[in-house]
Amino acid sequence: MEEQISVAIVGGTGNLGTALAQRLAFPGVKVLVGSRDKEKGRAVADSLTRSLGKGTFEGASNRDAARVADLVVIAVPYEGHAPMLTELKAELQDKTIVDAVVPLNKGKPFTPPAGSALLEAQSILGQETRLVGALHNISAVDLQHPGAPLGDVLVCGDHADSKKSVIEFLGKIGAQGLDAGPASNAYVIEGLTGVLIQINRKYKSKHASIKITGIGER
Amino acid sequence: MEEQISVAIVGGTGNLGTALAQRLAFPGVKVLVGSRDKEKGRAVADSLTRSLGKGTFEGASNRDAARVADLVVIAVPYEGHAPMLTELKAELQDKTIVDAVVPLNKGKPFTPPAGSALLEAQSILGQETRLVGALHNISAVDLQHPGAPLGDVLVCGDHADSKKSVIEFLGKIGAQGLDAGPASNAYVIEGLTGVLIQINRKYKSKHASIKITGIGER
Repeated sequence: MEEQISVAIVGGTGNLGTALAQRLAFPGVKVLVGSRDKEKGRAVADSLTRSLGKGTFEGASNRDAARVADLVVIAVPYEGHAPMLTELKAELQDKTIVDAVVPLNKGKPFTPPAGSALLEAQSILGQETRLVGALHNISAVDLQHPGAPLGDVLVCGDHADSKKSVIEFLGKIGAQGLDAGPASNAYVIEGLTGVLIQINRKYKSKHASIKITGIGER
Repeated sequence: MEEQISVAIVGGTGNLGTALAQRLAFPGVKVLVGSRDKEKGRAVADSLTRSLGKGTFEGASNRDAARVADLVVIAVPYEGHAPMLTELKAELQDKTIVDAVVPLNKGKPFTPPAGSALLEAQSILGQETRLVGALHNISAVDLQHPGAPLGDVLVCGDHADSKKSVIEFLGKIGAQGLDAGPASNAYVIEGLTGVLIQINRKYKSKHASIKITGIGER
């Protein structure tokens, strides 16, 4: 029997977090719905189990979720980004971490003092951490519908092996991950989410995503 | 007879500039190939006329090109961006200007002190100028081949009417322009070019472009 992969979603009761949890309802994936409030994490996990009728969900505190999981996705609002990483620093040392956080101010993208959320995470967790930026630009509405096609996921970071394993993992949820260069590119990929939000407003949609074209058969 | 539109390309002998000139070889479009060196502009214009066998090309100094054209595209390398706009400030006051300049350092994107090339242009030319950021992410290789499908063009700026007229103009060259929000978004769209360059390297292509999906029939 194949071993079960456990994925912790830090901020799993939020918009992106819950949507991502739904996408991960696959045999062989155990989803740890992390929350500041353990009971809230459990309530969301129970509700997902009931409403989807498949998948393995478990609620936990963000700390416990991060500690036991193989892969940790950071999906908190930007305001909670630095405090959360500081709090979970010990738990995150030997994990593959996907930072999906986007610096937004009333829906507008901005670059934080560190240059990007990812560079901020790198400076908090240390340069050697297996940290990758990804999943910023996927529509939460599309994630919630397992059949819906997803946009491409631009994956950046300075840790080549982690990028590779995250791109493999993305394949599991039906998303095409692409190596989009070093961590220094993160400000672009994070900022793109704000641009997509504004395109959604302008064109009255909730699904704006990107596809990279012109790089051959994929 | 429909009036001829004249488009000046400031930096028209460069990579993007020449490629764009080739795309504009349509009846009804007069392309002014601008160059620091008037003779070089003329040589490129003559060469385009000979090799394409269609289109109206004329070489000129950047200043003369900008002065007489209806629409001015800025396509110089980032190093020449601020000096060029300062030099052409008087000529650009009543024009619709497309700034296609991308701040790159050895193929890597960066944000200049003003926040983006577009905000830099805005601060040089004045807030009221009909300035739009566009055409950053289109592959020069694809522009050169009039049949090749082009990626979407993210158009940003604070001047709504100018964005609208640039999106219309883009339709002429077979490109789908999309309103991608205010000038403050330019750092993302400019930076995306650097990310696409790195994706090209990684996936051994010259054509990486973006398409925005999920915003309905277009």
